[in-house]
Amino acid sequence: MWDFAEITSEELALQRKRYEPLTESIRELIDATLRSEVDDDVVASARADVEAATAKLRGRQIDGTLGIGLTPDGETMAWGNVAIGTRNPLAPPLVVQHDGPGRAHLDVELGAAYEGAPGHLHGGYGALVLDHLLGAVASYNDPDTAAATGTISLRYQRPTRLGQVHAEAEIQRTEGRKIFITGHLGDADGATVTAEGVFFVIGPGRQDQGNAGE
Amino acid sequence: MWDFAEITSEELALQRKRYEPLTESIRELIDATLRSEVDDDVVASARADVEAATAKLRGRQIDGTLGIGLTPDGETMAWGNVAIGTRNPLAPPLVVQHDGPGRAHLDVELGAAYEGAPGHLHGGYGALVLDHLLGAVASYNDPDTAAATGTISLRYQRPTRLGQVHAEAEIQRTEGRKIFITGHLGDADGATVTAEGVFFVIGPGRQDQGNAGE
Repeated sequence: MWDFAEITSEELALQRKRYEPLTESIRELIDATLRSEVDDDVVASARADVEAATAKLRGRQIDGTLGIGLTPDGETMAWGNVAIGTRNPLAPPLVVQHDGPGRAHLDVELGAAYEGAPGHLHGGYGALVLDHLLGAVASYNDPDTAAATGTISLRYQRPTRLGQVHAEAEIQRTEGRKIFITGHLGDADGATVTAEGVFFVIGPGRQDQGNAGE
Repeated sequence: MWDFAEITSEELALQRKRYEPLTESIRELIDATLRSEVDDDVVASARADVEAATAKLRGRQIDGTLGIGLTPDGETMAWGNVAIGTRNPLAPPLVVQHDGPGRAHLDVELGAAYEGAPGHLHGGYGALVLDHLLGAVASYNDPDTAAATGTISLRYQRPTRLGQVHAEAEIQRTEGRKIFITGHLGDADGATVTAEGVFFVIGPGRQDQGNAGE
């Protein structure tokens, strides 16, 4: 199993307050970069601002990665997770809504930064969303369980339009350490990608760790 | 098939020169954000810089997304693509190396921003990389072909360490409009995820469009 980084609930709340607004501002910056039509000198000036921010943030930094924080209450925080990380500008972030022990859904706005074919979601990003959601369902099922992807198969029915994306997943059955889960995602016109996954219980976990085993 | 945005080779080169350095600087900013330990006031000051940059870039902007540019020479540019986009800070970017008509590989450094389990690549991001690479092989095979993912199945053998990631893909056979491709990715210790995909030829394409049909 993975090592978690111990953190108090108070420190976790402080770090969220410190970094979430910055992360959200960088998500806005990314969207602005992707849709900008300003002239060379304005782009260069914006770049200078970005480099000033980077220099400030690098004033003191850790080696490696943030990993997953764990409080004495069992709350976890996957700070840098590419799908759900509250400190990761790459994460939309996904927010998994658990609808009980064996099923969950998520709704997320995926804009210009997630493009593949013109105006449409990159097929690989759809795979990332479904892998994460199915893994979150697998890990949530039992408070003493963390699960990792064994296999996942995706079927693309049609391209997914950028914008509001909805995804659902549900456990179909378990066999020993194997958890069989199906799911799908889609746009306003319905399902576009379906998924079937087999996840493996890899050790003790916690209900609210998102998809720590992913 | 998709609509491409006509652009001259000169304008394409100008836009690359204008936006690539900014995009690269934002990738650095993202890494700095994920590893920073500076105090509240410094984070707030960095955020102000980011917001100043965003305001400048939003001075003039397009609606929607950048899509894929196409020059009279047949060169294409997937500016905002989440995997390969030269203007998308979310893209590492992936750079697919074609080793002939039916096979390709890529090497990419995936750091803190791509984390899932502590210190390891998010399994869903591995799926994104393999989906993109297999799709690029499918689309490159014939200069008059663009291909879209039909199905892709991924098998996770063990977690992939963050750092240098290598991936390969190869066409196994074709049947009418179907292209069967296998691939894998891994870290310094070898393969970690294998993939089998079936792609469908969806219309005319171009050799150098990356994975425009993805």
